[in-house]
Amino acid sequence: MTTMNHRVVLASRPQGGISPANFRLEAVPVPEVGPGEVLVRVRFLSLDPYMRMKMNDVKSYTPPQVLDEVMVGGTVGEVVASNNPRFAPGDAVAGGGGWQEFHLSDGKALRKVDRSLPLEAYLGPAGMPGVTAWHGIFNIIAPKAGETVLISAAAGAVGSVAGQLVKSVGARAVGVAGGPDKCRHAVEVLGYDACIDYRADLAGQMAKAVPNGIDGIFENVGGAVMDAALKHINVFGRIALCGLVSGGYNAEPMPIRDATVLLTQRVMLRGFILSDHLDVFPRALADLGARVASGHLKWHRTVAKGIAAAPEAFIGMLGGANLGKQLVDLG
Amino acid sequence: MTTMNHRVVLASRPQGGISPANFRLEAVPVPEVGPGEVLVRVRFLSLDPYMRMKMNDVKSYTPPQVLDEVMVGGTVGEVVASNNPRFAPGDAVAGGGGWQEFHLSDGKALRKVDRSLPLEAYLGPAGMPGVTAWHGIFNIIAPKAGETVLISAAAGAVGSVAGQLVKSVGARAVGVAGGPDKCRHAVEVLGYDACIDYRADLAGQMAKAVPNGIDGIFENVGGAVMDAALKHINVFGRIALCGLVSGGYNAEPMPIRDATVLLTQRVMLRGFILSDHLDVFPRALADLGARVASGHLKWHRTVAKGIAAAPEAFIGMLGGANLGKQLVDLG
Repeated sequence: MTTMNHRVVLASRPQGGISPANFRLEAVPVPEVGPGEVLVRVRFLSLDPYMRMKMNDVKSYTPPQVLDEVMVGGTVGEVVASNNPRFAPGDAVAGGGGWQEFHLSDGKALRKVDRSLPLEAYLGPAGMPGVTAWHGIFNIIAPKAGETVLISAAAGAVGSVAGQLVKSVGARAVGVAGGPDKCRHAVEVLGYDACIDYRADLAGQMAKAVPNGIDGIFENVGGAVMDAALKHINVFGRIALCGLVSGGYNAEPMPIRDATVLLTQRVMLRGFILSDHLDVFPRALADLGARVASGHLKWHRTVAKGIAAAPEAFIGMLGGANLGKQLVDLG
Repeated sequence: MTTMNHRVVLASRPQGGISPANFRLEAVPVPEVGPGEVLVRVRFLSLDPYMRMKMNDVKSYTPPQVLDEVMVGGTVGEVVASNNPRFAPGDAVAGGGGWQEFHLSDGKALRKVDRSLPLEAYLGPAGMPGVTAWHGIFNIIAPKAGETVLISAAAGAVGSVAGQLVKSVGARAVGVAGGPDKCRHAVEVLGYDACIDYRADLAGQMAKAVPNGIDGIFENVGGAVMDAALKHINVFGRIALCGLVSGGYNAEPMPIRDATVLLTQRVMLRGFILSDHLDVFPRALADLGARVASGHLKWHRTVAKGIAAAPEAFIGMLGGANLGKQLVDLG
């Protein structure tokens, strides 16, 4: 009996909003392992906002997702067959396997990982989201003790790490998240000094939460949240522009309502994409891995079950349904 | 007979637009020279966009202009009396004398200047506007040979220097200016590779003028010009945000229409105010002075005559009536 590989491909590009009809579930035979190749059984699939951007057929920092091909995505799993001397069956590996149960690799983009951490940590705080937070906080915002850093999507995979890194240097971390549950989690579990529920009175809460203004913004959202934050930016403020889920991913213009403060407050804003900064990974992963292993870095997963659940979980995440890292458990 | 000092004070703050009624011309006796003081007869007054911002009573990078007091402003002139051992009658000096014919100084903010350049050069390419261009181009945008840098207000006091600095490192300089006369001056006299008249088809001209995209923007204007430029910004583009005359100075919000490119193109934007960077002056002034003296750095003045003409000249400059540095000659 042939073992089948269940996978999700991009069926069509979103027009306006995204919907489950943009995806198609397929079953194909698990591929043969050729010379030098490694077959990985995926254990966890990572769902990330950048995937939404790739679904558009527009000029961006990576090529668009190809229609009718497997959705790209980060994965962790276990080697089940190998013709590559660097990998043996049973090895735990991280790589970009995509939205499918099995993936074949030439080994170049596979990284063996240590089982002393839960495998899914390599898709979260000890993986790409963690390094994204690490680079934005330490290399762009570089907060000093006593400064205030605002982090939008504060309870998400990136934001939850960013807030804890800010706290670790003695700065004040103020989060922005959607709804009281996420805000409670941000303060009580992640250690934020305050968290603003953007669905309530954004301007009023912001004024209360940043009495000394804002020295750094780790921006994952954009739009109204960023506009509200800019009203409080201090002189020489730094903005790490990491994501713009509020509008950019639907290919609609994402305005900054009043850019005058960028001049009057002498603000430095830097847009960044982690794949430009591969040199950061070794040091960041070593630091983050140690923080996770010691229990100092808290993290939370929202886990969907089975590859068929991936599209709905992805759409839910874009709408803010997840707490912490959004994963799909492929069993 | 008492010699009179004619001066312009701020009579009222602009509500909406600026008008001559916001200023008042006064005549007061020339002050006595006290211990340690220097009396300077002003030869040229500099009119600069930052003055418009100071006329508003809003939080900004310097305190607002005080009502009923002499308008602040950079000046060059000649010492006519001195009780300060550092200065003697006849010395040529630059300083912040304000909108008046005579000013008294304790000498701290006065700088002796070399008469080998025309005095007014110290208010232009060998003064604050020149250093502003120098810092923005060399310390923020840092263009490499073959790159393209867009400069708005290209024929103004700052822009005219910025364009020539860009050319001096082998990069392509594209200007934006108001009207065919300024554009012709930018290309034929200042050496810009191309100049876009923003009053005509902005988007169409922009596309033609930057076939390889834009690597750096020296932004003096903001608004529609900046939005049009951002559509062409290359990966790792740098923006030196120096001024926002298009709207910010009237205290109206100045939007960036679509900030998504700041992320997708990994743009670095830095707002700057020259007074934060006093450390830059010695090296920049030495370099700029040499470029002016050798004739390599071209510059143009628009000169109004007499202190009474200052308000109209200032309002005209804000509306783009000047070519190059706007001065008032106090005779």
